[in-house]
Amino acid sequence: MTTHMAREIREQPEAVARTIQALRSSGGEIRRLVGDRRHVLLVGRGTSDNAAVYGQYVLSCRGRLATLASPSLATAYHAELDLTDVVAVAVSQSGDTAEIVETLDWAARCGARTVAVTNNSESALAAMADLALVTQAGPEVAVPATKTYTTQLAAMAVLGLSIAEDTEMLEQLERVPEEMARALASAAVMERAAAGLIDADRFVVAARGYASSVAREIALKLQETCYIAAVGLSYADLLHGPIAMVGEGTPTALIASSRDAAVLPGMVEVARLCASASSDVIGIGGDEEFASACHLSVPGPDSDAMLAPISLVVPGQLLVEALARAKGIDPDAPRGLRKVTQST
Amino acid sequence: MTTHMAREIREQPEAVARTIQALRSSGGEIRRLVGDRRHVLLVGRGTSDNAAVYGQYVLSCRGRLATLASPSLATAYHAELDLTDVVAVAVSQSGDTAEIVETLDWAARCGARTVAVTNNSESALAAMADLALVTQAGPEVAVPATKTYTTQLAAMAVLGLSIAEDTEMLEQLERVPEEMARALASAAVMERAAAGLIDADRFVVAARGYASSVAREIALKLQETCYIAAVGLSYADLLHGPIAMVGEGTPTALIASSRDAAVLPGMVEVARLCASASSDVIGIGGDEEFASACHLSVPGPDSDAMLAPISLVVPGQLLVEALARAKGIDPDAPRGLRKVTQST
Repeated sequence: MTTHMAREIREQPEAVARTIQALRSSGGEIRRLVGDRRHVLLVGRGTSDNAAVYGQYVLSCRGRLATLASPSLATAYHAELDLTDVVAVAVSQSGDTAEIVETLDWAARCGARTVAVTNNSESALAAMADLALVTQAGPEVAVPATKTYTTQLAAMAVLGLSIAEDTEMLEQLERVPEEMARALASAAVMERAAAGLIDADRFVVAARGYASSVAREIALKLQETCYIAAVGLSYADLLHGPIAMVGEGTPTALIASSRDAAVLPGMVEVARLCASASSDVIGIGGDEEFASACHLSVPGPDSDAMLAPISLVVPGQLLVEALARAKGIDPDAPRGLRKVTQST
Repeated sequence: MTTHMAREIREQPEAVARTIQALRSSGGEIRRLVGDRRHVLLVGRGTSDNAAVYGQYVLSCRGRLATLASPSLATAYHAELDLTDVVAVAVSQSGDTAEIVETLDWAARCGARTVAVTNNSESALAAMADLALVTQAGPEVAVPATKTYTTQLAAMAVLGLSIAEDTEMLEQLERVPEEMARALASAAVMERAAAGLIDADRFVVAARGYASSVAREIALKLQETCYIAAVGLSYADLLHGPIAMVGEGTPTALIASSRDAAVLPGMVEVARLCASASSDVIGIGGDEEFASACHLSVPGPDSDAMLAPISLVVPGQLLVEALARAKGIDPDAPRGLRKVTQST
């Protein structure tokens, strides 16, 4: 029987295409709202926070400083800040997660202009924001987020590229759903990989730069859906010390864009180090050298490094879904995970 | 035989006292440099990045927005940003880590004023920054950072409190070394705890807000020094899904300030949830209710929630050092870890 999670992973190319279609015309509104404010402050929790990490790179690499804020600054400490040069962007699938709504409200009171990135046009977050960028994932039945994550990535790309008026990259963005569809072909390989990882209870997931959002997201999914102690981090952080925990019994998943020239050589080095430490190394994306340094690999998209993460996450999601089943866990309803769809 | 790491943990009260003494007179310089720039951008890697997380809270809760930037924005992507409203603060023990030096240089070229927080007054970072806040940890022989971390926390506190001219809290900061000295008394309890955790190869470390820096740092130390797949995160993130990985065979270390009223009830809830999932729960700090929800606990400092983390990390460091020895690892020279003391 196909799980909801598997079905929703497969729905992603359409969901992302719908989202890009719906948001592309928002460019003018986005630019008017952002104006010459120099700083974008992103807020999210869990998967939405991982999408915000992607936004941080896209926006910053297109000329607008973007960083993350912790909700506790608002909800626990009621920090009094001057945010008059800030656009606050809150990311929440449900748009009704109380702490995120409260944080965006706090940002507005501190002087920020506000944007909501949510899958629910009727949500509190959409209602309160100066501008709502509504993703078009449709209803997500499985508790682990998949298509709501990739549609959030698409929204982040539209946001960053619209501010920069990068019409060429916006056109390239429209071809991402095709690349995502191709990434679904990795399902069979990931099913085999999962069968070999049935006893894994530790995992390291690494990437860097644009793709670091994906490393964090796959690690989070492995924690939530497979109960694995997964550490998601940049390879620069990994090499700085935590590489010590990699070895036999601690598989690694490494994610790289084939077109990220500044990052790819480091990813190849990491793959070799992990393999020489007797870790099972799964590679997603990269080039031939990267693939040959891994024990098992699947190709990534033929997209610009900036857009590749939206497709690169797909094989990772497929691995998580297959591994949950292999471990006897229902990926649609793992223990501990709550899907916050209302504020109560 | 006492390890260098154990000795350096014990040296911390003095190292922090020296650092506060050396930096307290920098208040005027700090205020002149920061001026009315609205945004502080923090940069670090590994332990220094964890210190930056603490700085983010202290500065933001004292009225100056502080967030973290990824070095890869500078080193991999050469992002072109307007940082004319920014003070960039680079944190590096050695002050010679090439990517951190490069990132601060990038920030300066983008218009930022620059601050170096480093333990090496002769370093490239100290030389290039508009202002160097030199910590007084002295030479650190053990590879895992301990006293260089807590002296960085002290520097962050001086920075944030000086900007806000919070003389009362600066006076309280001077009493922190006494609290750190008291925290050393937890060594015997942590030695016993370590003996019971000898087989642990997964760990969850959680806190929230001011203390979240400590949760990250203890998780990083467990990764680097004990080869444990340790996940360090805020309890809000933990409850959002990753709690699924907590259970028998996955101990938890929970860190809380007794005076952090906004955070403490959540920490008590988390302690109960982890205990009911059959995790061995170690509590550091908190109140009586928190302690009784944990299987084993040590008291925290009698400091304001903002300053408590500088002492709260001490029992965690003692646990890591004892656990490494219990596992037959030399804590002074774990595999994989490099102490970057020069830029080559």
